[in-house]
Amino acid sequence: MPATNEGGHWTDAECPVARSVDLLGDRWSLLIVRDAMDGARSFTDFQQRTGIARNILAERLRRLAAHGVIERIDSPHGKRKVYRLTEAGHELFPVILAFRQWGERHTFAPGEAHSTLVDDTGALVPRAIPLGPDGTPLTSRNTRVVHLPRSGGDADA
Amino acid sequence: MPATNEGGHWTDAECPVARSVDLLGDRWSLLIVRDAMDGARSFTDFQQRTGIARNILAERLRRLAAHGVIERIDSPHGKRKVYRLTEAGHELFPVILAFRQWGERHTFAPGEAHSTLVDDTGALVPRAIPLGPDGTPLTSRNTRVVHLPRSGGDADA
Repeated sequence: MPATNEGGHWTDAECPVARSVDLLGDRWSLLIVRDAMDGARSFTDFQQRTGIARNILAERLRRLAAHGVIERIDSPHGKRKVYRLTEAGHELFPVILAFRQWGERHTFAPGEAHSTLVDDTGALVPRAIPLGPDGTPLTSRNTRVVHLPRSGGDADA
Repeated sequence: MPATNEGGHWTDAECPVARSVDLLGDRWSLLIVRDAMDGARSFTDFQQRTGIARNILAERLRRLAAHGVIERIDSPHGKRKVYRLTEAGHELFPVILAFRQWGERHTFAPGEAHSTLVDDTGALVPRAIPLGPDGTPLTSRNTRVVHLPRSGGDADA
């Protein structure tokens, strides 16, 4: 079942970028997804990591759950509810990684302290560069947007 | 020179994800970057593609220019100013691609019409999967965030 926009209105209905951004394109939603990937579970975890106001956090968690990005489950350790990413939520990893790697390259002075991502051997995660079918590095200059007719809409899904 | 946050305040100063999201984490800024990658140049181009209100568009273009993501240049075809991505702006390609590919997978019903991205041979752009140094597909489950001390801040830049 695809994620839906609760209001039923998409900014640009045929564009997958715009649909994703309609669902996730605000600072707090993206930071909540980041924190869920980094182990945040309880309302308090998210509140402490982001510093977000409680009413805004509650609204964003509700929206992300309605969009199928997180789910609210019983805590294995008590009576409270906790939040975890759905599979669709986990698939946002390339989005968060791309923001991280752009930020590392473009928002810090040389030598300035920052967090980074390592794999489970402790090795730094290399820069992710999208590749074409023949291995060519892809950029906005050697790709273009085309419109698929309705019947071909799931050809690459 | 790194991108800066005009207000001088970062939500989470050591996190590159948070810095990127502070600069770009709103729907209109991300759609403006998308449209610039897709060939939008003039104020009117952006206005028509996004349907954004003119005053909001003007403010977002000004912010993206202040953050070093786009630049305002003389039009080669007339007296007007046009906008183009800086090199830092072009490096947002993996961010826009990740939103696109997540949107294609998770926000459309099977067969529903949507745009997609092709390379300069017309081939569909394959799903971009981040890989570790040894070629292992990376996810939020087999990576973790570590904090680099100040002196190591540019080790992976």
